[in-house]
Amino acid sequence: MATRVAVVGASGYTGAEIIRLVIGHPHLELTHLSAGRSAGRRMADVYPHFAGILDTALEDADPDKIATDADVALLALPHGDSAKTGKELRTRGLRVVDLSADFRLRDVATYEKWYGPHGAPELLEGAVYGLPERYRDEIRSADLVACPGCYPTSAILAAGPLLDAGVIQPKGIVCDSKSGVSGAGRTPKLSTHFPEVGEGVRAYAVAGSHRHTPEIVQELSVACGAEATVLFTPHLVPMSRGIFTCIYADPVDPSHTSDYFSWVLANAYKGETFVTALDEGTLPDTSFVRGSNRAQVTACKDASTGKVLALCAIDNLVKGAAGQAIQCLNLMLDHSENAGLEHTALFP
Amino acid sequence: MATRVAVVGASGYTGAEIIRLVIGHPHLELTHLSAGRSAGRRMADVYPHFAGILDTALEDADPDKIATDADVALLALPHGDSAKTGKELRTRGLRVVDLSADFRLRDVATYEKWYGPHGAPELLEGAVYGLPERYRDEIRSADLVACPGCYPTSAILAAGPLLDAGVIQPKGIVCDSKSGVSGAGRTPKLSTHFPEVGEGVRAYAVAGSHRHTPEIVQELSVACGAEATVLFTPHLVPMSRGIFTCIYADPVDPSHTSDYFSWVLANAYKGETFVTALDEGTLPDTSFVRGSNRAQVTACKDASTGKVLALCAIDNLVKGAAGQAIQCLNLMLDHSENAGLEHTALFP
Amino acid sequence: MATRVAVVGASGYTGAEIIRLVIGHPHLELTHLSAGRSAGRRMADVYPHFAGILDTALEDADPDKIATDADVALLALPHGDSAKTGKELRTRGLRVVDLSADFRLRDVATYEKWYGPHGAPELLEGAVYGLPERYRDEIRSADLVACPGCYPTSAILAAGPLLDAGVIQPKGIVCDSKSGVSGAGRTPKLSTHFPEVGEGVRAYAVAGSHRHTPEIVQELSVACGAEATVLFTPHLVPMSRGIFTCIYADPVDPSHTSDYFSWVLANAYKGETFVTALDEGTLPDTSFVRGSNRAQVTACKDASTGKVLALCAIDNLVKGAAGQAIQCLNLMLDHSENAGLEHTALFP
Amino acid sequence: MATRVAVVGASGYTGAEIIRLVIGHPHLELTHLSAGRSAGRRMADVYPHFAGILDTALEDADPDKIATDADVALLALPHGDSAKTGKELRTRGLRVVDLSADFRLRDVATYEKWYGPHGAPELLEGAVYGLPERYRDEIRSADLVACPGCYPTSAILAAGPLLDAGVIQPKGIVCDSKSGVSGAGRTPKLSTHFPEVGEGVRAYAVAGSHRHTPEIVQELSVACGAEATVLFTPHLVPMSRGIFTCIYADPVDPSHTSDYFSWVLANAYKGETFVTALDEGTLPDTSFVRGSNRAQVTACKDASTGKVLALCAIDNLVKGAAGQAIQCLNLMLDHSENAGLEHTALFP
Repeated sequence: MATRVAVVGASGYTGAEIIRLVIGHPHLELTHLSAGRSAGRRMADVYPHFAGILDTALEDADPDKIATDADVALLALPHGDSAKTGKELRTRGLRVVDLSADFRLRDVATYEKWYGPHGAPELLEGAVYGLPERYRDEIRSADLVACPGCYPTSAILAAGPLLDAGVIQPKGIVCDSKSGVSGAGRTPKLSTHFPEVGEGVRAYAVAGSHRHTPEIVQELSVACGAEATVLFTPHLVPMSRGIFTCIYADPVDPSHTSDYFSWVLANAYKGETFVTALDEGTLPDTSFVRGSNRAQVTACKDASTGKVLALCAIDNLVKGAAGQAIQCLNLMLDHSENAGLEHTALFP
Repeated sequence: MATRVAVVGASGYTGAEIIRLVIGHPHLELTHLSAGRSAGRRMADVYPHFAGILDTALEDADPDKIATDADVALLALPHGDSAKTGKELRTRGLRVVDLSADFRLRDVATYEKWYGPHGAPELLEGAVYGLPERYRDEIRSADLVACPGCYPTSAILAAGPLLDAGVIQPKGIVCDSKSGVSGAGRTPKLSTHFPEVGEGVRAYAVAGSHRHTPEIVQELSVACGAEATVLFTPHLVPMSRGIFTCIYADPVDPSHTSDYFSWVLANAYKGETFVTALDEGTLPDTSFVRGSNRAQVTACKDASTGKVLALCAIDNLVKGAAGQAIQCLNLMLDHSENAGLEHTALFP
Repeated sequence: MATRVAVVGASGYTGAEIIRLVIGHPHLELTHLSAGRSAGRRMADVYPHFAGILDTALEDADPDKIATDADVALLALPHGDSAKTGKELRTRGLRVVDLSADFRLRDVATYEKWYGPHGAPELLEGAVYGLPERYRDEIRSADLVACPGCYPTSAILAAGPLLDAGVIQPKGIVCDSKSGVSGAGRTPKLSTHFPEVGEGVRAYAVAGSHRHTPEIVQELSVACGAEATVLFTPHLVPMSRGIFTCIYADPVDPSHTSDYFSWVLANAYKGETFVTALDEGTLPDTSFVRGSNRAQVTACKDASTGKVLALCAIDNLVKGAAGQAIQCLNLMLDHSENAGLEHTALFP
Repeated sequence: MATRVAVVGASGYTGAEIIRLVIGHPHLELTHLSAGRSAGRRMADVYPHFAGILDTALEDADPDKIATDADVALLALPHGDSAKTGKELRTRGLRVVDLSADFRLRDVATYEKWYGPHGAPELLEGAVYGLPERYRDEIRSADLVACPGCYPTSAILAAGPLLDAGVIQPKGIVCDSKSGVSGAGRTPKLSTHFPEVGEGVRAYAVAGSHRHTPEIVQELSVACGAEATVLFTPHLVPMSRGIFTCIYADPVDPSHTSDYFSWVLANAYKGETFVTALDEGTLPDTSFVRGSNRAQVTACKDASTGKVLALCAIDNLVKGAAGQAIQCLNLMLDHSENAGLEHTALFP
């Protein structure tokens, strides 16, 4: 029997993407859709790509109703709202996968510095960081999973295994990321208005001012067992989906070869369905993962500077958000981890 | 037990898209991949979005080998090649779905005027035009299906029901279509080089010089039982996938209202999974069908000129090619018509 | 001595484009910049492509101040505002080039049906429609010029000469236009949000519901000396600049050849700097006019339907707005018509 | 009297861009256009954005003819060809601005390692690196100027002044660059085919394998008077024009503040027309320099890692190629340095 799923915050891109994946999932049933401002409208009117597919209207996000309608809830809410709603739903016994930042940072003070007051700090201890390639076992038994941010997913998949293996320095890691515009959400802003962003490229929130910085630092620090420092530079690129991240780091042992760093990644992801360490000769490309839950990674060493370069391409809305949430849910529900997620990327 | 499928001509965009769909299909098994120039290479090297998914190498297209390996063949070959290979495979008893132009035109002379000598004219009579919404029963029992061109699919889905119903004039139909660049195939040309095509729009092959013209004329003539005439204008738009077609036609009865034409389409597609006649208030958009086998259509009347406008959006590589081929194959194999095709569009 | 120019409504795309052109103009001096909500900000902060070029702050739009600062005013205001400001400035003796819709429609009732109450109907009689290729002499002596809309510019340049020459029917003209997103202005909206519009194509405001329809009808009616009827279908295409328009019309004399229609356009634009009738073998492309005041046109006949096809490509912000305004101003000020407008298009 | 200019290699994007700029230049006259494969064709047929503007046919590149026709030559040829043609023209007394790599690298051995045998090594000593902001005086008196590569221009403009001032370490400089597709030239290739590159982002030629690496190293080494080491990562982004470069470097003095690095750039470019050090609050964007000869730069320090970040945006075809060549030519001919180059960027 299918698990009944509520999608709370269905009117954003992440919510819509979760719905796309739940609809195609063999073991999940979409039994509740709610949203804030769009409540009362049919999902197919808010997102006409569901026309002819989904005839459901969006409800107001009432915790009692959600608890009645569903067994698990996926929250695609703005930070702040998620903590509150997550708490209400946990109180009512629902298992929750949260896609906001509210339960990602383990340290309340760090959270409050970047995001403001936390609505449910008492839940932080039990929350599990929802990156299955790193926290698979913890996710299985978790009742509250905090799905990683899109940029952190790409950064951690590239740099994590190199820090796990102790082969790159934890200090001074540079993370240069290029993102599609859907990462900024569906609310129109000047910075995402087509003519402003459509035919150019630019950095934004430079020098550690982007909120994903502490999340990357947290998880890379966990990986190396020390205090990592990270310079994170996000860019906006004229495409809808995708994140491409370059990690630049110093090696621990200068005698390690380029092949060795490549092998560390390949070895770390051996057996993983959703992370592919590419063979030499092929470099990751966001076009190769578009619409899929897969990440492509590779690493090499630059002979001249001795620095290590690790690359990762993901679809920010799938492996960077909705797909990863479903992957976590599969683990929590003891389904095959890749149930409902086996789409090949849409190329071209 | 899964049907064994050969994809012949796997190195083009249509071939790759067929493979994507066959991989995700519950009743089909990919047992043969062949290609011309790329033979010997691994599919995942030719198309790295298959890295970690498909470890098969491309073979030479040998008819005996194909007949040994597979029960049915999907041909994604250039016109000319398809007729020859199709004949070889039919001789060996395989059921064939051809995606080239070779078996679409019923009249050999018309074919030869536009495409040159026909390699297997004797097969034309038995070939069925693979547009399931119009030829569902014939496709079920066909051994050779000719999948429609991408532009014709969009034009016929929009105009066909209006001609069936006898509500628009068959003479002087204007078909103004806007296509993504993948429709031009994977071979690099100046006209598809990013900087030439990337940030502008233009018509090409105007005034009846595009090869899809006779195909549109043929099928619209079938629909109305008379000789239709069509002015077809294709455009190239800076996007990878999608066709958006506007049909302009004169009404038969000037007293028919806008709602009436809209109703004719809605009525024609009632019960169809893959063609959605949109409610008033939503217009088709290629972004709403990207990556899916769905078409969106609508019709209305212009008060000032009295003309009828019918719109259709499809993904040229799915409903306009690979998806439609699988839809035909599902019918031929007596599977559910939408098996393996129930993807929601990838939006945004 | 340079003419002192005020740009009123400087914070929209059209205003910014006028400024770009005035800065590069040999006989014009930018002496006043005003804007509504952005008043008080430096233009280079509102539009950083002026950083290092223009150190002027935007003022409030005060008619007395404008009249003190400048000899002529270019109004890039929303409709409604333009009529009011235009009246104030005309009262103070300034010659005005208005880029809004307020003085384009000669009939007040038509204006009010589409745009609401008119703020200065008494000025309509003296206003001249600012399409120099059609109203050159009237513009020279005008004190109030109403610059054409972007879509109408493209439609009239393509169809006008064919109607002037009496070679196409004035009834049932189809105008299928594809526009870049800058035409929608700088205010962010869902319909111009990058992920919504970035990788697809769609029609909008179909069946005569777009406000440019009565303007196209008015000018095509003037051209043929009869009541033209027009079916106008605008589309949004993922590019920042450019309009590509296809005109479909019935010929008056079915014996006229394709070459004849092409010659009519070539003959009409002989000697024109800014409209190029292309030789056979080259079709217009918005990429070929990007950033320039030039239009490319061509015409031909479709053998099968007998219909005439006329094509036009312009840059909506230049020939469709700011460039055309400067072209008019050059005429009004007795400068060379192409002063400050001789940019070659930016290709690619 | 205007200087007579030959453009040799007119059929590539750089050649076409030079022609655009020469046409609009007050002191230059285009008297010779030649090309290889396109010889015999009219420039306006090869590039229809010149239709109605330029009626010249392309000639074969004959040195005697060039020397007869012109006073100076701008070479937009492939490397290898440039050395040969440059030598022929220097022998005939023409002053030459070369846009290939042939005269950029001062060390023949380095050149030959990356590009193969050098056709005119004896000219290297007299060649001047054509970056006016760094070699203004040398360019004035040069007879052979080697225009910088597009990536090096962006990297040197960002990092050069920081190395001049001795405030960043010369070892381990990371240069992460994102380029539009026109940088790859006009010859169609799979990697620049619209559907392959149009809606994604990817790195290429990683880990020091791109030919612009030694050029960046050379010039940054000159700046710091020591041996710089550089890790250069180029990316391809779905836009036609523009390069956005991030430089990551270690500071020499950890006590230097973010403002200080920003000031070093601002101070270095005080008085420069074509390089704008942006005020805090605005970041460079390729959209802000599109079509113009301007560069935008800024620098800051990351508090957490202590690293310095310097950013630069240019138009690869203008400041990164044709515009810079004209800027050099202006210096060589003792014209105002910005003659013919004062275009405001085309935004949006």
